[in-house]
Amino acid sequence: MDILTIDKQGEKLELDRISAAPPKKTDKDAAKQELDAIGEELFDLQDLMWGAKQHSVLIVLQGRDTAGKDGTIKHVAGYLNPRGVSVASFGVPSEEEREHDFLWRIHRHAPRKGELAIFNRSHYEDVLVVRVHNLVPESLWKERYGHIRDFEEMLSEHGTLILKFFLHISREEQEQRLRDREKEPRKAWKINSGDWEDREHWDDYTRAYEEAISRTSTKKAPWTLVPADSKWYRNLVVARTLVEALRPYRKGWQERLDAVGVRKKAELEAWRKGK
Amino acid sequence: MDILTIDKQGEKLELDRISAAPPKKTDKDAAKQELDAIGEELFDLQDLMWGAKQHSVLIVLQGRDTAGKDGTIKHVAGYLNPRGVSVASFGVPSEEEREHDFLWRIHRHAPRKGELAIFNRSHYEDVLVVRVHNLVPESLWKERYGHIRDFEEMLSEHGTLILKFFLHISREEQEQRLRDREKEPRKAWKINSGDWEDREHWDDYTRAYEEAISRTSTKKAPWTLVPADSKWYRNLVVARTLVEALRPYRKGWQERLDAVGVRKKAELEAWRKGK
Repeated sequence: MDILTIDKQGEKLELDRISAAPPKKTDKDAAKQELDAIGEELFDLQDLMWGAKQHSVLIVLQGRDTAGKDGTIKHVAGYLNPRGVSVASFGVPSEEEREHDFLWRIHRHAPRKGELAIFNRSHYEDVLVVRVHNLVPESLWKERYGHIRDFEEMLSEHGTLILKFFLHISREEQEQRLRDREKEPRKAWKINSGDWEDREHWDDYTRAYEEAISRTSTKKAPWTLVPADSKWYRNLVVARTLVEALRPYRKGWQERLDAVGVRKKAELEAWRKGK
Repeated sequence: MDILTIDKQGEKLELDRISAAPPKKTDKDAAKQELDAIGEELFDLQDLMWGAKQHSVLIVLQGRDTAGKDGTIKHVAGYLNPRGVSVASFGVPSEEEREHDFLWRIHRHAPRKGELAIFNRSHYEDVLVVRVHNLVPESLWKERYGHIRDFEEMLSEHGTLILKFFLHISREEQEQRLRDREKEPRKAWKINSGDWEDREHWDDYTRAYEEAISRTSTKKAPWTLVPADSKWYRNLVVARTLVEALRPYRKGWQERLDAVGVRKKAELEAWRKGK
């Protein structure tokens, strides 16, 4: 399984040439088993990170309507301890939010040490929907790629491990999912004529995503392109990318916790003697 | 299974007379099966609440050290969709927090419509640890019961379903758990001599809990006393209390979503015709 992660600014990207389907040889049942195993490892790593208080994790989920942002949160974050997880969804900005710079509402949801934050949409909307629908002048959104890189670099310097995922679905799969929503009475409340309208800007969004990903992929805040036409494969790619990003820190976190344990034990002994 | 929930102010309460062990006839395996079934129902109810955006849920977890607040979050909230769950832990207040009234830091974590917030400790610490250790004058903390009732009543009027849980463990079980922490190297970093010191104030805490629970139990914000010496029974009591509190709203939430669905479908039709 090759995961397509871009960690260098300026790479040329053509989303139309990248398949949204899982690789042919991938097996669904094996994938689910692997996901469960990864889930257990993630839970364990998260516990160490929580205790060590040296790093935090920021997961950015972006994708077109129905790409599966909610489903990814449910299935991948479902493996984690809710105590150390926060999910922030960024919809249409409120009046107060619009009266601040575009990173203001984002920054307050940055994860604190030990925690994992998941952004369901994010500051990237300000170079995506905002660009496609001309909500601000081009001169303004063009500046934002640099601001985003600077912002993410600062978070990274503070110990935040940043993972950005583009959930990549095909035009056909999206149509299917929108139609399914209409058919199923219990999902009808999720219908939005805006989703259909946005389909007419499909290619504009493609260009906007390509440029955003290309201009903001860095070593410290890489983008992973997730084939998302199959939900099980999408979940596996996200979970695996996450676990591989955390694994190298296990030893350091464990050592930190051991050191804290030694100190706490000594304090307890001293307290007992002092009584 | 009888769950001891207090929903009337002023009831006399003697915690020492209430068992922290599960009732004799309770079966552990059956309890785990029931918990799984409740978990599925909770997930479903949470989804309806999220969509309907009419109510929110606030779960307050209180209990002595090692009573299992973290474990309850892990096991009960683990059944929910992380998207609509937030966990706030209230430790020693920061300098900024101390410079505000005691409800200031709490209020900002109140759940928004559709969401479920879990408080790991809460505003109740301001009539518990604060009282036992004389951190503010008695005349000040005595006033807080009324402020808490008013605050919770306001949240309730805004559609917040409030459930408060006292995780009740015995003195012996706590000692066992503290000793286990010392023995297990991987848990040693959780050791705190303060936990042992606080045991010396056991009875003071008992009185403080009794008065807090008695003075702030109301119809809209009841306290449930959870026998917490056994983790599996504790989880079951919390989960069951929660699901029983949400169940009566299912029909209303579903009707709301159906109505939204009808409207959204009509909008989509109108948009299609207009093209």
